Amino acid sequence: MIAVKAGHEAYEQAWLGYRRLEDEALRARYAAVCGRLIVVGEGAGLASARLELRRAIKGLLGCEPVDLSAEAEAGVGDEGAAGPAIVVGLADAVRDIWVKSASGAAGMHAGAGAGAGATEMSDIGTFGDEDYAIRSGNDGSVYLLGGGEKGVLYAAFGFIRLLQTGGDIRGLQTVERPAYPLRMIDHWDNADGSVERGYAGGSLFFNDGRLGERMDRIRDYARLTASIGINAVAVNNVNVHAEETRLLAPERLADVARVADVLREYGIALYLSVNFAAPIELGGLVTADPLDTAVAAWWRDTTDEVCRRIPGFGGYVVKADSEHRPGPFTYGRDHADGANMLADALAPHGGTVIWRCFVYDCKQDWRDRRTDRACAAHDHFMPLDGAFHDNVVLQIKHGPMDFQVREPVSPLLLGLRRTQIALELQVTQEYTGQQRHLCYLLPMWKEVLDFDGGDGRTVADAAGGLKREAGLEARGGGADERREWRGGLAAVANVGTDLNWTGHLLAQANWYGFGRLAWNPSASAEAIGREWIRMALGLDPTVEETVIRMLMDSHAIYESYTAPLGVGWMVNPNHHYGPNVDGYEYSPWGTYHYADRYGIGVDRSVATGTGYAGQYPAFAAAMYETPQTCPDELLLFFHHVSYDMRLKSGKTVIQHIYDTRFEGAERAAGLLTSWDSIADRLPARVYVEVRERLACQAEHAQEWRDQLNSYFYRKSGIPDARGRTIY
Amino acid sequence: MIAVKAGHEAYEQAWLGYRRLEDEALRARYAAVCGRLIVVGEGAGLASARLELRRAIKGLLGCEPVDLSAEAEAGVGDEGAAGPAIVVGLADAVRDIWVKSASGAAGMHAGAGAGAGATEMSDIGTFGDEDYAIRSGNDGSVYLLGGGEKGVLYAAFGFIRLLQTGGDIRGLQTVERPAYPLRMIDHWDNADGSVERGYAGGSLFFNDGRLGERMDRIRDYARLTASIGINAVAVNNVNVHAEETRLLAPERLADVARVADVLREYGIALYLSVNFAAPIELGGLVTADPLDTAVAAWWRDTTDEVCRRIPGFGGYVVKADSEHRPGPFTYGRDHADGANMLADALAPHGGTVIWRCFVYDCKQDWRDRRTDRACAAHDHFMPLDGAFHDNVVLQIKHGPMDFQVREPVSPLLLGLRRTQIALELQVTQEYTGQQRHLCYLLPMWKEVLDFDGGDGRTVADAAGGLKREAGLEARGGGADERREWRGGLAAVANVGTDLNWTGHLLAQANWYGFGRLAWNPSASAEAIGREWIRMALGLDPTVEETVIRMLMDSHAIYESYTAPLGVGWMVNPNHHYGPNVDGYEYSPWGTYHYADRYGIGVDRSVATGTGYAGQYPAFAAAMYETPQTCPDELLLFFHHVSYDMRLKSGKTVIQHIYDTRFEGAERAAGLLTSWDSIADRLPARVYVEVRERLACQAEHAQEWRDQLNSYFYRKSGIPDARGRTIY
Repeated sequence: MIAVKAGHEAYEQAWLGYRRLEDEALRARYAAVCGRLIVVGEGAGLASARLELRRAIKGLLGCEPVDLSAEAEAGVGDEGAAGPAIVVGLADAVRDIWVKSASGAAGMHAGAGAGAGATEMSDIGTFGDEDYAIRSGNDGSVYLLGGGEKGVLYAAFGFIRLLQTGGDIRGLQTVERPAYPLRMIDHWDNADGSVERGYAGGSLFFNDGRLGERMDRIRDYARLTASIGINAVAVNNVNVHAEETRLLAPERLADVARVADVLREYGIALYLSVNFAAPIELGGLVTADPLDTAVAAWWRDTTDEVCRRIPGFGGYVVKADSEHRPGPFTYGRDHADGANMLADALAPHGGTVIWRCFVYDCKQDWRDRRTDRACAAHDHFMPLDGAFHDNVVLQIKHGPMDFQVREPVSPLLLGLRRTQIALELQVTQEYTGQQRHLCYLLPMWKEVLDFDGGDGRTVADAAGGLKREAGLEARGGGADERREWRGGLAAVANVGTDLNWTGHLLAQANWYGFGRLAWNPSASAEAIGREWIRMALGLDPTVEETVIRMLMDSHAIYESYTAPLGVGWMVNPNHHYGPNVDGYEYSPWGTYHYADRYGIGVDRSVATGTGYAGQYPAFAAAMYETPQTCPDELLLFFHHVSYDMRLKSGKTVIQHIYDTRFEGAERAAGLLTSWDSIADRLPARVYVEVRERLACQAEHAQEWRDQLNSYFYRKSGIPDARGRTIY
Repeated sequence: MIAVKAGHEAYEQAWLGYRRLEDEALRARYAAVCGRLIVVGEGAGLASARLELRRAIKGLLGCEPVDLSAEAEAGVGDEGAAGPAIVVGLADAVRDIWVKSASGAAGMHAGAGAGAGATEMSDIGTFGDEDYAIRSGNDGSVYLLGGGEKGVLYAAFGFIRLLQTGGDIRGLQTVERPAYPLRMIDHWDNADGSVERGYAGGSLFFNDGRLGERMDRIRDYARLTASIGINAVAVNNVNVHAEETRLLAPERLADVARVADVLREYGIALYLSVNFAAPIELGGLVTADPLDTAVAAWWRDTTDEVCRRIPGFGGYVVKADSEHRPGPFTYGRDHADGANMLADALAPHGGTVIWRCFVYDCKQDWRDRRTDRACAAHDHFMPLDGAFHDNVVLQIKHGPMDFQVREPVSPLLLGLRRTQIALELQVTQEYTGQQRHLCYLLPMWKEVLDFDGGDGRTVADAAGGLKREAGLEARGGGADERREWRGGLAAVANVGTDLNWTGHLLAQANWYGFGRLAWNPSASAEAIGREWIRMALGLDPTVEETVIRMLMDSHAIYESYTAPLGVGWMVNPNHHYGPNVDGYEYSPWGTYHYADRYGIGVDRSVATGTGYAGQYPAFAAAMYETPQTCPDELLLFFHHVSYDMRLKSGKTVIQHIYDTRFEGAERAAGLLTSWDSIADRLPARVYVEVRERLACQAEHAQEWRDQLNSYFYRKSGIPDARGRTIY
């Protein structure tokens, strides 16, 4: 584990490095506005916003802004301070000041507020806690206005982003509302300091059993995470072992609370993953039956204490009855029984239960071709639609299997209509190169969010779930109506103790991008990528053009040398890195490709297969049902076909496999060439360490190419039409 | 790890459990001789012999022998004590007493010694330290006579074995000499208490970094190991990590010495596996170059101190330049340079360097079919034949690969003529079922020992190496001539902290059998197996007949459901348990089968392959060179053949694969049936725990069957001729 050095050099701050802007004219333009800072009101969120603005302005522009907050509070100004300023505060508070200013008081407030007329402020009255506006005044002042403290903080980060990306800060009329109330990052961190599926060093939160020993770094994590709009973080692994089970114990809560305090300063609610058997393991009860009154009482008492110690506690994340984790099935209860019991314990405190739908039989017999793991989540949870309490959110992985580089969208996401849901993505690159390979995931996530099953209702809509169904959006939504809307997006973290946070520095873009997408799922992958590049690597247009192409191509490249045509897996068991075509073929995990000398793929049609295709809305179900209508990229996920079948591309399956493996390895090498072309434009450290990973990727892509080609050539006996070397 | 209970119940003493013999008449016959015990002389070995005899007699016969040693020493006897006795001592000392007795002194000595005439004792004068005789006197007394203290101890265990197996103790005229001076067990135990390739709990020697905390159990281990004639034990793993490197440090030697003291009481020399880079890691030098004078001096000084603290220290075991271990290659030196430097440090103390020949490129490119790991040991060491000092023993694995269930014999074993060698076997069942499957290894080891490459000089002869070459045996061998003969047999231990020592109780037979074979390689696997059964499970003939059949069949059964026809591997990487046909196919380990849709196997012929077959003596080389002459069971090791090739058995390769997999799984189930048939004749605990393993084996053999059959059917497309189910 790399020791975290003290100090805050830009490299260690990811996209909040605040390197001096190189364009002098730009700096001057910004400085004219940013030289003066007024924060109206008090509170942790406002304090964080002020701190961040000062830090950003100092770093980016090289000047310390004059802080006029106290004078503003007093309603008096000093003549010399007149001129544009950054005015920060709750929308309501600033409006009052504005009104006061507008009523004739002299001084800088009047000037600063001159452009924000009463009518223009009116829509801000409907702001939720997290909504914000950025408004320009006539004198060039910029108003950063939040519906609540979190909104103010987001406004500050939004404005900083403008500065970092070289945006125009004149005539601003931005209003921003997050698309979802839940924008969550799940850490799979263990108490011993390890991270399950972590590829960026050890845990930020845990160290040898202690929580919160790296508080400086946790604070930086909170800043980065809040800057992209994340408002919920689960700090421990969903696989809750003995040690983590004890996090709920009174003597451990002090540590949890210290971490929660820091996160809260940045508008982030802390969640704990809990062990469903905690009433037994921690409480000494003989059962964890969710319908047992002693069990419910134990959870209620425990939760009362947790919430007393941790103001604004988010709630519990639960992996139950999955991969050997305990759950309600043990007692003949269903998921709703389990989740609702926990939800009732949390309800008085406003907390949420995040209940994972990653439930399947992990002891399947590979000989049995009728059982299909892909069907499991839908089979388990569709019958329970509507049975969950309002503060239960079902967290559903984007595909029916497990974060493969190519899967169809989980039909459960579109199926549930009366249940809160969160789409679960995986920022950590478990199956997508483990941060040794470059794989920018936003193009894939966008495909998931935009998928509509044929009826126009997309996954992005579905994650908004009850809100849309209940017509709340149409009504504008007061506090009461909103209370029950809790869905959104959640993702597994890709960060650790590595100084660059993510191991592969360019993998920061996935972390950054997840937050930005969770805020606004209609943003484009490219726009978000460009934002990140500008913030993290600077405003050199050559760098931006080069890196955005690398990012945007990278998922397709990774897909092209790994498992073909949606079939998935073909990785080494357990650690999931590197090629192994039969790695999961004879395993109990439900993850097969059924390749023989004639063909490959899994028949999931209704007519002749496992019936999985029938779980989709009619249009999609029909599309996936036959090889002729199924999109090429998912062909082997839905059908077992012969190697010589023609794809829509005109190529045979086998030739497609060969061609894409060869091209994929070549394009992986091309990523390295691209990076080398901007060597002189990058900080040496960034250049060198990313280069090392790209070189490893290029070499490893050849390993994928050769192993897959050899496997299929040895099995099919069909030579490459272009006569390239296969071993 | 199972805690070791105090107490010495039979179960925890393996084949030295000394359960009361059930046959009353037999007990009476034995008791008539065993009621009186005379130990002539003193010393640790004699004390151990006396202790063991008393314990055995008490356990087996239920009587405490009268110890008349003191009276014998004084040369006077008491009338009532006249009659047969067990007389134990060094051959020389007993002869003196005999002479004294024969010269007319009255008393029991004359009676006891009456049958051992002066001429009959004459051959004993040539006894080496470990040789022994068991002689009956005319009055039924039994003389246990050793050339040295170790010989006395072996004589005592030999006599106890006779009692345990119900042998006739009249008219005994046994003379025993071990076939080899080195009969060694290598422990792959780590300081943290784990055992590499250990399947019987944790380390007997180490516990959380400390050595020798379980001294009672270590003493029992020494008794068991001495009882089968083992005289050398390396206590730590050949992969010497940082912690074990420090075992040579002065502050750690006290612990090592405590263990060595106990082993020495049982005639066992302690060896340490050492890290070739110890001069750097421990000594603070900048190099470990074997030709550097400072390095040699460090080893000399270190060795002097080790030998000062540990009388009779055996020497060093070295794995160098292999699988990422450091070695002389780093400095441009060869194995002889490295080994001789260590040998010189040990020579003044009579110590030995055991230098392992398991050297190969473990970063091979699977695409490269010309490089052949099988060739490596011969390639590396044959050119160095004769270059090693007299106290260097090259330890050579029995096959050219790595302890597979079927390999040809390593040609290096027969090739070296001017170098001391030890044949290395693996008692621990790394690739042979990991003590979850029953696999009695002696039939395989016997095949290795009896292999002669066509010229009549067997591996068993070769392991006797320099002795035979130098004609020492013909000359009888005095101490001087013998000094340089150090070769023999070594094997990796299969024991751990499990109460039954070996996890699978029947796997004790491999430990037992290894020692017995190292003593006498011409003993039969069946005779040794029967001995073990009688000693460990008692004298019930039904038990013996049932278990001996299980043992004798077990290797063939294991082979028949795992990798076919000598091709090897097909296991899961790293832990090496369970089927995975392509598990090592695209790896850097040099372990391939090259199966494609047409055929399978590795062409190692001289004519068209890697040339490995040419490393054998002419007869064997010719036999292995062509598929027509190569034995079926090694066909795929030496040749790549099509699935429809006919074996000498008349079956095609593919049908052989199917048939043996089906039969193998059936026969594995049959082992369970056999065991169940003697349920009532076994101690309940033994029955139950072995049954559990056999049931697991039966189920797991089906997994092997189905995975291999499916793999080959999917690849070859050739159906089973008998239409059985393949998935």
